[in-house]
Amino acid sequence: MTRSSDVVVVGAGVIGLAVAWRATQRGMSVVVVDPRPGTGASSAAAGMLAPVTELHYAERALLDLTLDSAVRYPDFVDELQAVTGHDVGYRQCGTISVGWMGSDLAALRDVADFQRSLGLTVEALSAAELRRLEPMLAPGLPGGVLVSGDHQVEPPALVAALLAAATAGGVQLVDQPVAALRLDGDSVHGVELADGAVIAAGQTVLACGAWSATFTLPGERVLAVRPVKGQTLHLNGDPGALSHVIRGEVRGVPVYLVPRADGRVVVGASSEEAGFDVRPRAGAVHDLLRDAQALLPSVAEMELVAVRTGLRPGTPDNAPLLGSIGVDGLVIATGHHRNGVLLAPVTADGVAELLESGTPPPSWKPFDPLRFDEVPSRGEPAWS
Amino acid sequence: MTRSSDVVVVGAGVIGLAVAWRATQRGMSVVVVDPRPGTGASSAAAGMLAPVTELHYAERALLDLTLDSAVRYPDFVDELQAVTGHDVGYRQCGTISVGWMGSDLAALRDVADFQRSLGLTVEALSAAELRRLEPMLAPGLPGGVLVSGDHQVEPPALVAALLAAATAGGVQLVDQPVAALRLDGDSVHGVELADGAVIAAGQTVLACGAWSATFTLPGERVLAVRPVKGQTLHLNGDPGALSHVIRGEVRGVPVYLVPRADGRVVVGASSEEAGFDVRPRAGAVHDLLRDAQALLPSVAEMELVAVRTGLRPGTPDNAPLLGSIGVDGLVIATGHHRNGVLLAPVTADGVAELLESGTPPPSWKPFDPLRFDEVPSRGEPAWS
Repeated sequence: MTRSSDVVVVGAGVIGLAVAWRATQRGMSVVVVDPRPGTGASSAAAGMLAPVTELHYAERALLDLTLDSAVRYPDFVDELQAVTGHDVGYRQCGTISVGWMGSDLAALRDVADFQRSLGLTVEALSAAELRRLEPMLAPGLPGGVLVSGDHQVEPPALVAALLAAATAGGVQLVDQPVAALRLDGDSVHGVELADGAVIAAGQTVLACGAWSATFTLPGERVLAVRPVKGQTLHLNGDPGALSHVIRGEVRGVPVYLVPRADGRVVVGASSEEAGFDVRPRAGAVHDLLRDAQALLPSVAEMELVAVRTGLRPGTPDNAPLLGSIGVDGLVIATGHHRNGVLLAPVTADGVAELLESGTPPPSWKPFDPLRFDEVPSRGEPAWS
Repeated sequence: MTRSSDVVVVGAGVIGLAVAWRATQRGMSVVVVDPRPGTGASSAAAGMLAPVTELHYAERALLDLTLDSAVRYPDFVDELQAVTGHDVGYRQCGTISVGWMGSDLAALRDVADFQRSLGLTVEALSAAELRRLEPMLAPGLPGGVLVSGDHQVEPPALVAALLAAATAGGVQLVDQPVAALRLDGDSVHGVELADGAVIAAGQTVLACGAWSATFTLPGERVLAVRPVKGQTLHLNGDPGALSHVIRGEVRGVPVYLVPRADGRVVVGASSEEAGFDVRPRAGAVHDLLRDAQALLPSVAEMELVAVRTGLRPGTPDNAPLLGSIGVDGLVIATGHHRNGVLLAPVTADGVAELLESGTPPPSWKPFDPLRFDEVPSRGEPAWS
């Protein structure tokens, strides 16, 4: 069986669905292929939209991209909610980063200084200010850092809304695994499914996160993306226990708590290199509960509703792979690592522009999917 | 709608189902009523059959009953497996009790001395012997105590086999809640269901664990049974990590690990007074993982498959409520607390005998369901 469309998108996570929705809005016919839509990294994500708080040293280019996407978020959500009638839980909540002990706080303050040096708005909190803003936090925390502009969204609700918007816009969803890209010399013409069916398409968008490196591209190339296992705990408590997203460093290990308006709390996230293993690991659950309780003792009394595991698409520099690789008919939109939910609007807008005009946004230069080709592999020491 | 039978059993856990099976074997017609068969305390139980290891001070009468039931277990399982073709996972594995630090071990050795004084076979293990028997345990454990005769069974498999045996024997299962006992003066004549239907029966067996106290008995009596919430963690690891059931005291808090032959491990159990709340509590999950890891570090690498919560039917002296209470047509078989799986054979045999002959086994004297009637309630201080 063969069907054909202007565009086929491989992957129905937040990135693939947002791309598909935006492409239909520009008049393209779109098929999205995914054996289990919305069940990958998107389903385990906590939904923090925190470009400033997420910033790490030497990630300046990524900061610009995340800030750009954060600016697009209000309109993106308004439009999505208007089209679908869904509520995706978008709200401003601010982020407070807290240190569990003095050395944790010192490290947070150092990052805050770096953030301020870039012109970002970051506010130091004393122990007393911290206690006033979040009285349920553990007594004795030495202080923190406030970024009041941060937002959150609920990823499962976002995925559901994107699915609804995409299908309402005419996107066809095919819940089959993709076996291979249809290569013809140095160009791509759609995909071949596991059941032998073919989806012919003028342009193919690879947006299947950690699985993007399982496809061989023309020239035997493989994308520099790897699965980084992350686990989140989904708890149910009393509404009002927390007013802000809390990000902590507990003896050097990061943990966060994202409160929903109705008392649910998402705790995350482990970070493990474990290939494609998505089984919940008991030790990660323990460590998350231990560190979350250290910051918010009432976690102990909350209901543990679920443990979710996702595979972040990690890259060598933690920034995404966006744009073309010199292969006709192929667009890359993967490697979003910890930032897929936040980067969905800017990615979808840029890919739609690229699909229509053939040219990516100029700001995507730092995210060239082939930028790692010159990096020696780990098996080849640089001094040899 | 009215149906009638010789016996109606309220509760389809291991106790109710074993009673029903044994009663049909004596030629009685039996109906079992339970809105969700096999999902109560039986479903969360780990299935340790450990009369010696479970023994606590001043529970001599209970010890005799548990030893009696342990002796009946091999035939009970053989017969059940022969009738149904099910494998219930019955096997000898022995129990090793380990102390996490010296004071924990001292407490275990004191209990062992008490057990030995009763003529039970209990063996002290040095740190080196412990390490030889269970090399995966944490380094540095000070020693332990071995009871090599202990067995285990898999409660979900046991429940499934009992269901199969009971229905094969002609037991009818009604998956409705019971609204009330049908009282007539000082006698009971079956039950009334939530949907208004009636099951008339010459004899009614109350075997619904923690829920047994929700029924009012003739004379406005209520049984002295209360829910004691327990949580177990169901893990998946490599086969062979443990050869024995491990019971530990970690800084005074008990924890156990029950290894199945295929690498699964059940970790238990919290003990909480929380009414009929069966939501998994994050703090209990944390504490179980912490203490299980302290004894067996490789727990951290196991998959967390499920958290199960059950309500043990607790009684003031931790022993069950068995037999008659001077009410025609009513038999009590509840309050088995931590020992329901172990006590199923002796309870079922005794209840079947009582239903047939009108006389309970003489050894049940200490388990008179009304033995607490003289105890002042907690609201009435003894010195007033």
